[in-house]
Amino acid sequence: MTEQTSRKIVLASRPQGRPSADNFRTETGPVAAPGDGEVLVQVKFLSLDPYMRGRMSDAKSYAKPVEIGQVMEGGTVAEVLDSRHSGFKKGDMVLGYAGWQSHAVLKGDTLRKVDTGSEPVSAALGVLGMPGFTAYAGLLTIGQPKAGETVVVAAATGPVGSAVGQIARIKGARAVGIAGGEKKCALLREKFGFDVAIDHRAPDFAEQLKAACPDGIDVYFENVGGKVWEAVSPLLNDFARIPVCGLVAEYNATGQAEGPDRLPRLMRDILSKRLTIRGFIQYDFKDQQPQFEKEMKAWLAEGKVKYVEDVVEGLEKAPEAFIGLLEGKNFGKLVIKVS
Amino acid sequence: MTEQTSRKIVLASRPQGRPSADNFRTETGPVAAPGDGEVLVQVKFLSLDPYMRGRMSDAKSYAKPVEIGQVMEGGTVAEVLDSRHSGFKKGDMVLGYAGWQSHAVLKGDTLRKVDTGSEPVSAALGVLGMPGFTAYAGLLTIGQPKAGETVVVAAATGPVGSAVGQIARIKGARAVGIAGGEKKCALLREKFGFDVAIDHRAPDFAEQLKAACPDGIDVYFENVGGKVWEAVSPLLNDFARIPVCGLVAEYNATGQAEGPDRLPRLMRDILSKRLTIRGFIQYDFKDQQPQFEKEMKAWLAEGKVKYVEDVVEGLEKAPEAFIGLLEGKNFGKLVIKVS
Repeated sequence: MTEQTSRKIVLASRPQGRPSADNFRTETGPVAAPGDGEVLVQVKFLSLDPYMRGRMSDAKSYAKPVEIGQVMEGGTVAEVLDSRHSGFKKGDMVLGYAGWQSHAVLKGDTLRKVDTGSEPVSAALGVLGMPGFTAYAGLLTIGQPKAGETVVVAAATGPVGSAVGQIARIKGARAVGIAGGEKKCALLREKFGFDVAIDHRAPDFAEQLKAACPDGIDVYFENVGGKVWEAVSPLLNDFARIPVCGLVAEYNATGQAEGPDRLPRLMRDILSKRLTIRGFIQYDFKDQQPQFEKEMKAWLAEGKVKYVEDVVEGLEKAPEAFIGLLEGKNFGKLVIKVS
Repeated sequence: MTEQTSRKIVLASRPQGRPSADNFRTETGPVAAPGDGEVLVQVKFLSLDPYMRGRMSDAKSYAKPVEIGQVMEGGTVAEVLDSRHSGFKKGDMVLGYAGWQSHAVLKGDTLRKVDTGSEPVSAALGVLGMPGFTAYAGLLTIGQPKAGETVVVAAATGPVGSAVGQIARIKGARAVGIAGGEKKCALLREKFGFDVAIDHRAPDFAEQLKAACPDGIDVYFENVGGKVWEAVSPLLNDFARIPVCGLVAEYNATGQAEGPDRLPRLMRDILSKRLTIRGFIQYDFKDQQPQFEKEMKAWLAEGKVKYVEDVVEGLEKAPEAFIGLLEGKNFGKLVIKVS
């Protein structure tokens, strides 16, 4: 078999604050033939997700950073071109972490065959993949919404937020979604069936949120951080639950934040309202993955969960699309169609 | 029966910051004869606890404030002088909320007969009462210490902190206690059996804490707030649990705290370390009360749990003793011997 050439996007430098195009560099290079237990793949879809901002920094976190000059990490759906792993054969469609590149040699043991049922394979990166599972595990295990309760989620048109709202409604709760702009709010109401959609850019955002939650907030699914918390926290009910899976509004923050110091007030709220705040990463709940896939496929088939993909064509567009993602410019789950 | 006269301490005014003697006033007044279902009691012991600072303010909290001119609230052990409730008779020793006064007429349904086994009746206000149960429920339900893990607690010679450390050790965990001054630290080591005791007044407190927790901190039982958190938070392990039952260091705070704003860093820690922070009040777990009493009595009988009482004689000393409690001047569980 002819040696493959891979186009790839590497981390050129670490961003200070907001990433820019300069932080990325496009390269081409040969891809070795697969060794024992390895598989050569051609990437079809690359998932772009906010967590990647963390990988660009060398601050301590739950995962190691991407090194300068390394290919940017990322989840992918790819087609097997050549296999030296007994579990895969040419033509198989696999889910794995090939990163921001067109071709890769991967260990077969890190791959799974894509099974999205009647959905397009890209759904394995969204509603049936990491974002959907993040919503499912965090909302049901930590948030534990009950019938009649109010669940609030921000970045609500994103793949996590839209699943949070729809699963909350399946469990009988009210879903209040926060998004940026009227077009996204219309999507929340009309496609995803949220009970209320609120534009966080509105000057009276906090008042609108209060009006939307006449019985207070029982679950706030925290995936953005920043100013939304200020509007949410006075509305939290006693015994409210706050799963924390992301803080995209703060990923570009540098240095210490200016005062006043909001920590003492938070601690007083935690005590007086007996709040539960718990951080999680979806793989902390990996035992629930099979149950998730079974339930989510059923909800999709029944039309109880819907999803929207924002597909950008061409690997070279990934840096610009990713920078836009951190600013909320995407409309639904952002994926790059690589080939 | 002759009408009784009660000496009582009422809330004269709301403190701004640290309470002072001016915020209290001593009064005497008649105590009515008990009506149907009521009981006349003479208070033997009054419990003084940090939560009472909250009742002196009219800020929203989990309990209503004491009104100006009302008797200060508080848990008591009292003797029944006269009863019109079928569950109690003259001479019974009862646990209830008579407050800061010598005599009271109380509804019988709010009282329980004191059963402290072989311990003095005042233990019903400490190790076998609300503080002991706070430690038990918060540590075991939220903290969930496992053998070999490290549990840190501040105000560790107090009735909550000392029980937290001793229960942690019963469960096989290491107990690191924080207290103010060498005398209290010696008590932690010699009486309560903590593995390490650290004086928070030491200039190198944070370094000492780090040295005392070579494997990090798995459970931080938060009952003080303030600067201890700054030393604890960098040492928290992934998946650490933080039950929050009190913030005595902040009860006298007024207005907004000065920056920098520590909230964004806390949220990043919650996410990257997948922390669980959960506030609670012991009565949230009241179903566990019988199990607690059974286990704690057994631990006391076996010598696995010890306690220290700081008994102050005379109701008139309650304001001064309470103000001292908020500054850590007590040495063990603070109770007022009323009569």
